[in-house]
Amino acid sequence: MLKIAVLVSGGGTNLQAIMDANIPGVKIELVVSNNANAYALTRAKNAGIKALCISPKQYERRELFHEALLACLKENDIALVVLAGYLVNISEQMVREYKNRIINIHPSLIPSFCGKGYYGLKVHEAALARGVKVTGATVHFVDEGTDTGPIILQKAVEVKAGDTPEILQRRVMEEAEWKILPQAIAMIANGGI
Amino acid sequence: MLKIAVLVSGGGTNLQAIMDANIPGVKIELVVSNNANAYALTRAKNAGIKALCISPKQYERRELFHEALLACLKENDIALVVLAGYLVNISEQMVREYKNRIINIHPSLIPSFCGKGYYGLKVHEAALARGVKVTGATVHFVDEGTDTGPIILQKAVEVKAGDTPEILQRRVMEEAEWKILPQAIAMIANGGI
Repeated sequence: MLKIAVLVSGGGTNLQAIMDANIPGVKIELVVSNNANAYALTRAKNAGIKALCISPKQYERRELFHEALLACLKENDIALVVLAGYLVNISEQMVREYKNRIINIHPSLIPSFCGKGYYGLKVHEAALARGVKVTGATVHFVDEGTDTGPIILQKAVEVKAGDTPEILQRRVMEEAEWKILPQAIAMIANGGI
Repeated sequence: MLKIAVLVSGGGTNLQAIMDANIPGVKIELVVSNNANAYALTRAKNAGIKALCISPKQYERRELFHEALLACLKENDIALVVLAGYLVNISEQMVREYKNRIINIHPSLIPSFCGKGYYGLKVHEAALARGVKVTGATVHFVDEGTDTGPIILQKAVEVKAGDTPEILQRRVMEEAEWKILPQAIAMIANGGI
């Protein structure tokens, strides 16, 4: 069994997609949010999954927050960390210790609309501002940079006339994110990458 | 009839795609290459289309080359200029005088792998080096920048395991470039944009 931790900040629709996929050989051991009110924590609890809030606000120094998160992953014997809409930068130490064992979902076709400042709705605002006709999502390994790690899967999504950032965000989730994130986890669990 | 000029530097497979599409309301009035040996010129002549070589090498100064090209387009009453694998920078004056009447095909999903230094095979080399799983092609209006103009059409193409830059280049041509370039010309001819 590949024990995974899913790190979230919001509603947790990507977490739901992973739960629904029921990936053979994978156990969602732990869900961690930096936001105590994240609905993702409720989803996890309702499904009988251990759900914790670990927030920078709970610690005097950022460093202590990073240490607590890393310690929690180790205590729970986590083999793969999945960032699923997690809006907190992870520490360099965690990247080192979990090298090639942290993946992230990004709501664009990297290298378009990625890097510092491109997260959440801002990605889709930028795509619409540039007038692209095709966007998509990317699952990639996390390295020291922002969205610079090796790409695992990508899926294209059509931009349609009249799209708002919100409408486009939802289409990218439904048609790409919710599909390729579970697929990437399954590939890792199967030793496919 | 929308009289178009197709500017080319090489084999002219995109020119062939435009010819084969037989777009209603569009006449390929003129094919111009900077390269006297471009096979595209032979394709044009074989199809009974006026084919000219206008090369910087024929002129003492770059400025005179630019003037000759622009004069040629005007003499032939060209309404739309199609850059189809044209490897020469066009002049600012031409961009101004043919504002929103010059289109270009680029072998990536802009804004990925575009701008100065990204042309021809280099685009596909960069895409493979970054490890993207999805690439594609873009038709866009030409403005003062490099690949910065408004996007007309884009089409995604899958990158496959074992792809070389040459294999990927061919797939992007077949699955994307040869389709969206004639489509974009048809949209302009129909007043769709």
